[in-house]
Amino acid sequence: MLKTAILGPVYTPDDPHHVAYLQDALVEINQTDKIIAVLTPNDADYQGHLRQAQADGRLTKLTPGQVLVPGFVDLHVHAPQWPQAGHALDKPLNEWLNDYTFPLEAKYEDLEFVQTVYHDLVHTLLANGTTTVLFFGTIHTEANLVLARECMDQGLRSAIGRVAMDNPDQTPAYYRDRSSEEAIAETERFIQALELLGQDEPLAPLPVITPRFVPSCTDGTLAGLGKLAQKYDLPIQSHVSESNWEHQYAIDRFGIHDAEVLDRFGLLTDKTVLAHGTQLTEADAKLLHERGTALAHCPISNAYFGNGVLPVKQLLAAGNEVGLGTDISGGYSPSLYDNIRHAVALSQVRTDGVTNADHGAPDSRISMPTAFYLATKGGAEALNLPVGAIEAGRQADLQILTDPHPWPSESPLERFERLMYQANRSTVAAVMVNGNWVYQVRD
Amino acid sequence: MLKTAILGPVYTPDDPHHVAYLQDALVEINQTDKIIAVLTPNDADYQGHLRQAQADGRLTKLTPGQVLVPGFVDLHVHAPQWPQAGHALDKPLNEWLNDYTFPLEAKYEDLEFVQTVYHDLVHTLLANGTTTVLFFGTIHTEANLVLARECMDQGLRSAIGRVAMDNPDQTPAYYRDRSSEEAIAETERFIQALELLGQDEPLAPLPVITPRFVPSCTDGTLAGLGKLAQKYDLPIQSHVSESNWEHQYAIDRFGIHDAEVLDRFGLLTDKTVLAHGTQLTEADAKLLHERGTALAHCPISNAYFGNGVLPVKQLLAAGNEVGLGTDISGGYSPSLYDNIRHAVALSQVRTDGVTNADHGAPDSRISMPTAFYLATKGGAEALNLPVGAIEAGRQADLQILTDPHPWPSESPLERFERLMYQANRSTVAAVMVNGNWVYQVRD
Ligand SMILES: [Zn+2]
Ligand SMILES: [Zn+2]
Repeated sequence: MLKTAILGPVYTPDDPHHVAYLQDALVEINQTDKIIAVLTPNDADYQGHLRQAQADGRLTKLTPGQVLVPGFVDLHVHAPQWPQAGHALDKPLNEWLNDYTFPLEAKYEDLEFVQTVYHDLVHTLLANGTTTVLFFGTIHTEANLVLARECMDQGLRSAIGRVAMDNPDQTPAYYRDRSSEEAIAETERFIQALELLGQDEPLAPLPVITPRFVPSCTDGTLAGLGKLAQKYDLPIQSHVSESNWEHQYAIDRFGIHDAEVLDRFGLLTDKTVLAHGTQLTEADAKLLHERGTALAHCPISNAYFGNGVLPVKQLLAAGNEVGLGTDISGGYSPSLYDNIRHAVALSQVRTDGVTNADHGAPDSRISMPTAFYLATKGGAEALNLPVGAIEAGRQADLQILTDPHPWPSESPLERFERLMYQANRSTVAAVMVNGNWVYQVRD
Repeated sequence: MLKTAILGPVYTPDDPHHVAYLQDALVEINQTDKIIAVLTPNDADYQGHLRQAQADGRLTKLTPGQVLVPGFVDLHVHAPQWPQAGHALDKPLNEWLNDYTFPLEAKYEDLEFVQTVYHDLVHTLLANGTTTVLFFGTIHTEANLVLARECMDQGLRSAIGRVAMDNPDQTPAYYRDRSSEEAIAETERFIQALELLGQDEPLAPLPVITPRFVPSCTDGTLAGLGKLAQKYDLPIQSHVSESNWEHQYAIDRFGIHDAEVLDRFGLLTDKTVLAHGTQLTEADAKLLHERGTALAHCPISNAYFGNGVLPVKQLLAAGNEVGLGTDISGGYSPSLYDNIRHAVALSQVRTDGVTNADHGAPDSRISMPTAFYLATKGGAEALNLPVGAIEAGRQADLQILTDPHPWPSESPLERFERLMYQANRSTVAAVMVNGNWVYQVRD
């Protein structure tokens, strides 16, 4: 017997340029929380399946004005920075790190504070329609395990990294790994503890190898983390060429580009997700493509710290894997809807330039279906997870949206675009992760 | 006796660069819906006034986590375009106008359709914390009067323009004034009908002289509207140098800039509000300043259609009046919160440029208090209305926000910034216009 079936209009990404619309779709979810079929009225067995689901009392019917879309995949969240999301964005990056971010992250020794923040963060992400998150934690293994516990308890699919950072030149004495050995040993301890914690749990968080970024790690740590990733066959996350400063730092220290440094240390794999990349050269992007490494595009954060707009259209055309990230708290918003909109708007600004005198980079516009793809299938592919689309064979991670303004005369694509432009937390009516309803708006 | 008093933390704009924070402020509103005093615990008579308001049963106490801010002033809304907000933003401006906008606006002959749309729009604006709106209507006088009625019924402060557009080269045959005489006569009929409708109403909408923009009007219409504005001493609204195309159009037709054309026809006064202006030269901006004409900055819309980012910081420094507009539906969002954030983020992108090769326009960043000023006091000054701040002498147009994440360790300024970055419709708990609660979120 099915676990549940959902009846209603569905929008799901087809490819980087197209979204599919299915009217009156019947989405069937089995006992292992997989979508096993998506039937439409044209299918011969549609009526039979619909009657059966109803007879079994397993049918959830969307109400008029509601639509079903995949849950979102957020590829870049600094969990400990949640309390400062929206603070100090007028500061330059180094001031923002040293006066705000590092002091805040150092607080995660206090497990009571940790519990309060991570509970609120996980709830907020779900309430915004996000169902999978790739997290940076802190250097504190225990705090990271609290985050893991919260994700499992509240039903958020996650991958979590214990941050490694030991370069005394680029990290403060009160918040760093005291040596390369400690960075690596503590990362390994975290991997093992997380695997133990997640045993037999359906939403066991994936441990992720997490060098903060090249500047904050010594060579020994970068090399050791590369080996750990190989030993445990784990995903990797970091930042790459986020800003002019970071891009130049790698050149000054290694004589090569940021992406090449990560590659040298075995950190560019087909399980790697790198945030930002606004300053990548075409050759850097080609290297990422060759390695199967994905980019987490964080458009809001990049407006503040990126010194440019990522050429998403060109990257997708070249075959690079790209998903979307909120980058809490370089990005102020916990909502991928906000980031979808900024991705589209900033791609347009990239095309036009910002003043009368400059003329931008031609043909940089991306469409709303493309931004939607980044937040769903693109993110799922970056993490190699079977989520991000309403298709047979994928796990059932879904959102129900309540359209605030269902105009009768719209085409399905117009309705989709308007919803993506106008949705916010109050539009998300219910969220399913792995076949279970984990968030429902109070009525 | 007071009409009502409100007790709670207040944020209100001081000047274009500073926001004031008042802890436990007591905001007193009298029977004429004016704020007559804003007392803080340091004031000698604070305790007495507080006790009196309580004794009279007239005290509204904010709950923990709530804050009071002024209602927002939206300087640019095309009311008839609400049903297409979020549609077709990937089209070039002329296609967007001819294939989407004009056909939609032409529908406002159908008063049942008008009623449905305008009811929803006015409700949506209030629900997003907007308390004053400067509207473009359509060419249909009756439809514009329906909008006026909705604003008064729901309690939105408004100024409404009947759109004039008669240039056969730039408007479709099915949607234009048939002559200059008709454009002017119909505008005058609208002014008189609106003044009649608003008689003795506390929120009587102001009629506004509204040449759509220079391209859509013949010389006769521009001249006639200038005279009407003078005859009735009315506000004026239009667009100015919104895009490369519009900027060049004026040069091609008149040999002078768009702003100079408006000036030639008597349409640049200290009661004029012009949308966009991304392509204004410094000399154009100076002319606006000399005339006391205000700009409605519409950052979201400009990302799509403006071919550049308005130099808000430079304009404010030069003394130009600037407020904020959603530009429904060139902008997709009915929320000035969304526009506040885009104003800040795009000012940052303007500073940095969009690619590795360009370097933007230095020193263009504006702060969150500046964006807040634009949405409040800046807009109020543009319209010469005594609203937009929580100060004695202003009308009581207010919003109560419920902070979704009240972190205990934040400074008041940090809290303000986070709230402005994260607020959306679900954050707005209640809205007061002219001393009356006109919107409250259901609990
Ligand atoms: Zn980051
Ligand atoms: Zn406009």
